[in-house]
Amino acid sequence: MSVKLYYDLLSQPSRSLFIFFKKAQVPFEACLVNLGKGEHLKKEYLENVSRIPKVPVVHDGDFRLNESVGIVRYISRQYPVADNLYPKDSKKQALVDEYLEWHHLNVRVNCSTYFIKTWLNPMKTGRQPSEEEVRKAKKYMEKSLQDFQNYFLSNGKFINGDQISYADIHAACEIEQTRVAGYDVRDRFPKIKEWIEAVREECNPHYDRAHQFVNLISQKEEEPKSKL
Amino acid sequence: MSVKLYYDLLSQPSRSLFIFFKKAQVPFEACLVNLGKGEHLKKEYLENVSRIPKVPVVHDGDFRLNESVGIVRYISRQYPVADNLYPKDSKKQALVDEYLEWHHLNVRVNCSTYFIKTWLNPMKTGRQPSEEEVRKAKKYMEKSLQDFQNYFLSNGKFINGDQISYADIHAACEIEQTRVAGYDVRDRFPKIKEWIEAVREECNPHYDRAHQFVNLISQKEEEPKSKL
Repeated sequence: MSVKLYYDLLSQPSRSLFIFFKKAQVPFEACLVNLGKGEHLKKEYLENVSRIPKVPVVHDGDFRLNESVGIVRYISRQYPVADNLYPKDSKKQALVDEYLEWHHLNVRVNCSTYFIKTWLNPMKTGRQPSEEEVRKAKKYMEKSLQDFQNYFLSNGKFINGDQISYADIHAACEIEQTRVAGYDVRDRFPKIKEWIEAVREECNPHYDRAHQFVNLISQKEEEPKSKL
Repeated sequence: MSVKLYYDLLSQPSRSLFIFFKKAQVPFEACLVNLGKGEHLKKEYLENVSRIPKVPVVHDGDFRLNESVGIVRYISRQYPVADNLYPKDSKKQALVDEYLEWHHLNVRVNCSTYFIKTWLNPMKTGRQPSEEEVRKAKKYMEKSLQDFQNYFLSNGKFINGDQISYADIHAACEIEQTRVAGYDVRDRFPKIKEWIEAVREECNPHYDRAHQFVNLISQKEEEPKSKL
């Protein structure tokens, strides 16, 4: 009986977890949850899938677990996963964890806030953010991206040195989301550009499959500009 | 040679890590960092202590590690730590991790935003937040506290059942911080009140020692009100 993975590729942590499962070759039953239709908020989901109205979630037999980073750690203990993806060596594991913990209040919160304020909220409500709101969201996002580049991309090709780990996948999926909102990190951060291309190459074809939506929307966002 | 712990008890994760080390009886060399004086921003700190201008940090011999949650995981692998504080059993550990990951973008971000907007920023700048800013920060904080109570305090005395884990210590230290800003969670959330008292009891005398500043300031904040 394989693990059930509940996810929606519209969600950044769902994408990183999907890529992790594929790259680690851990078999899973794909259980799609339509966030756009609010399936994660329904009584049936809260009773039968997760007490927390979020994706991703795994069921491993009777055991239910939320939170992508916690799920990666659990799966890496329970199933054979390539050591570089989530290292068993205590110090190497600690450095992957260091990034994964730092991520939440830096890359995660600031890239997703920019995305929500400049793309998701206007799409939902029809109301455009003020220039000041955009300026502020962009300032915090770029501070996090600069810090990410300085603190985590100075030791080699990837966060943890010369081999890719889940930390790279998790970071890349969050940063890619900003392309939907018309921001391309590749234009301003050369080290991030090089690193994100290396992550993509290491994880393909799964990386491109997970980013189909991001690629589609970001191309659409670019079209009107080229006609101006 | 014991671990060096760099911390300032003004910081919530420093307090939870300090309590963890004491409760786990892992010997450490206390290296105080004065955040108020900006010691964590100085060249000497960035070169000799941590490339990231934050506390807490540990040095274990030549190995440097940031991020409290990653530090707890590392210390629990390297040193004898009571199993309940960070369980070795894979599923129990996963549930402690589930909380610790959920924490960042819920209890952590919303309690600290309330604290920063209503207490820290006014103290630094002399400018009071608008009623709308306070209302919004309080709304998000109370949503997180309600979710915390619903999702994580319904399985027993503590987050992971009947025994305290680091998840409880980490959550309690963040929630306690709001008392400095004159908000007492105990007034509105009875389950959190009961749980926070149980965490304190399990962790004393270390809990009270870590919260000396919080207790002192929150008493001062109450004084003017009693004179009104």
